[in-house]
Amino acid sequence: MIIGTGLIGGSIGLALRARGWHVTGRDRDASRARRALELGALDEVGSDPDAEVTFIATPVSVVAGEAAQAASAGGIVTDVGSVKSGIVAEVGHPRFVGGHPMAGSEQEGVDGADAELFQGATWVLTPTEATDPDAYARLSAVISSLGANVLAIPPERHDELVAVVSHVPHLTAAALMQLASTKAEEHNTLLRLAAGGFRDMTRIAAGHPGIWPDICAENREAIVGALDQLLEALGGLRDTVDKADREGLLHLLERARTARVNLPSRVAQAEEMVEFRVPVPDRPGVIAEVAALAGELGVNIEDLETVHSAAGDRGVLLLLIDVRAADLFRGALLARGYRPSVQALE
Amino acid sequence: MIIGTGLIGGSIGLALRARGWHVTGRDRDASRARRALELGALDEVGSDPDAEVTFIATPVSVVAGEAAQAASAGGIVTDVGSVKSGIVAEVGHPRFVGGHPMAGSEQEGVDGADAELFQGATWVLTPTEATDPDAYARLSAVISSLGANVLAIPPERHDELVAVVSHVPHLTAAALMQLASTKAEEHNTLLRLAAGGFRDMTRIAAGHPGIWPDICAENREAIVGALDQLLEALGGLRDTVDKADREGLLHLLERARTARVNLPSRVAQAEEMVEFRVPVPDRPGVIAEVAALAGELGVNIEDLETVHSAAGDRGVLLLLIDVRAADLFRGALLARGYRPSVQALE
Repeated sequence: MIIGTGLIGGSIGLALRARGWHVTGRDRDASRARRALELGALDEVGSDPDAEVTFIATPVSVVAGEAAQAASAGGIVTDVGSVKSGIVAEVGHPRFVGGHPMAGSEQEGVDGADAELFQGATWVLTPTEATDPDAYARLSAVISSLGANVLAIPPERHDELVAVVSHVPHLTAAALMQLASTKAEEHNTLLRLAAGGFRDMTRIAAGHPGIWPDICAENREAIVGALDQLLEALGGLRDTVDKADREGLLHLLERARTARVNLPSRVAQAEEMVEFRVPVPDRPGVIAEVAALAGELGVNIEDLETVHSAAGDRGVLLLLIDVRAADLFRGALLARGYRPSVQALE
Repeated sequence: MIIGTGLIGGSIGLALRARGWHVTGRDRDASRARRALELGALDEVGSDPDAEVTFIATPVSVVAGEAAQAASAGGIVTDVGSVKSGIVAEVGHPRFVGGHPMAGSEQEGVDGADAELFQGATWVLTPTEATDPDAYARLSAVISSLGANVLAIPPERHDELVAVVSHVPHLTAAALMQLASTKAEEHNTLLRLAAGGFRDMTRIAAGHPGIWPDICAENREAIVGALDQLLEALGGLRDTVDKADREGLLHLLERARTARVNLPSRVAQAEEMVEFRVPVPDRPGVIAEVAALAGELGVNIEDLETVHSAAGDRGVLLLLIDVRAADLFRGALLARGYRPSVQALE
């Protein structure tokens, strides 16, 4: 079931239906839900208390209420909000797993919905100690089936990191435009000089700002912290330029270049996966621990299943991991006291 | 003639030869000049004291010396450096017109040279009071013939504006990468979360930093000034977020959005031009005055010719202007005491 049938909700609906799911959905704006139905993103408009999975794709401010209600009905519930700690703490249900697909589009609304939107995109899930391992595993498998790469990290860390790679860059783009447009009388000349770099850097400032007050309120602490770090870094560059410190400038720019060149590209091939089998005690929190460890290392868990033993107090986690990250992840698991076995996929 | 046959010099050579020019060129690295010859960017390697136009496409630090020498030989001389006031003041020759094509490429070196590199790009020229009007007009016509849109602005203003739209954005991209990479232990996770916006904003940080110490030294004052403004704008955003001032944030982001959406696109159609005929006293400085006025208004002078009267003390400037800017420019000329006549092109 999908609550909120905009760009993201509509895209989830299209992608799920393409994989054979029966998708029910609703929106507080009834015409938007009808449009989603017309576009083939839904099988029917309405609520489905028996839904196996419910995706909440509403504005951040109403997620917690919807999530608590949906989770109490018995299925697995997730959301797509761009800030996680507040919501995850507020809902606090073992079958609610916070989520954040790192995908978007220049388009807006359900008319921009695209079944392929999540292909190759990173989709964050934020399991906690309290998360039901089976619910997590099932949700992760469903999301992977949409073509996304699931990355599991704790909600607080997610919020700190998106402040750095998403929220602060957005505010910075706005500040650059502000700088450019204060020179009002030279506006046209200035903007005619704006070559590709400036256009690239300010593109995100062209988006509708309506979502940002919520995001900035929800993630205030992390954003202010990251902005302070950026102000310090920029202030340092300013002084380097002012002192005409050529060596210092070159060093700073070289480091930035190295970091940028090493930005990972997005695709991992299916045949490059290995399977990890990790015997674990059958208790809550284990899956969050393993997933968080993978997240810390930047290792992507492509698929995750839990196999319960007959005895009941032990189980086995089955995980699919990129072969290039296999040794790194195995080392980390061993260091935390797990005894994984690894085998190639045929 | 072309001095410095790298990416820009090589592209100028290719574009000129495609339009029937005979192009001589040299480079302090002889193998690079030979490579330019092989690639068809030159007719011959060497110097040509009789060249009608000389393009200096060397690093900024050696432009002034080369320019003074080339101008003393009798032709028109220009350069492609990204900072202008220092060079223009140092050369101080009426037949030297500072230039800056706002075009580049991910490629590097003469092997990335492309005859179409300047198609639709803005190419700044910086005439001054001392500039020879005929030299300016001829150079502007040659550059327009390469497909570029000539924009004439005074050298000091050029430097202030590129600090805002090019130099400071570059340093900002580096600062954002610096911020992202200080969280070293979470580096991989962080970078996996980096979606399109962050990638767009930091792309220019991947360029080779070798040119930046020169640029920052040459344009120190303007860069430090613009960085101070950016620090103030970002500091303001920081406080707005910290105070959870939703209205203030929305207002700032709305303004940035409007400015970004109004970034002019790059193409003007040939059939949308009108011809301005502006009677002028036949003295140095007139062309710079008219060109600077167009630059201030962001009006592009597509082509410019001077017609001298028989009497000798009066002339007529012929200018091609985008029809949409015609009224604006006519008003400005009238306000400065000129008496332009305007007619549509057939």
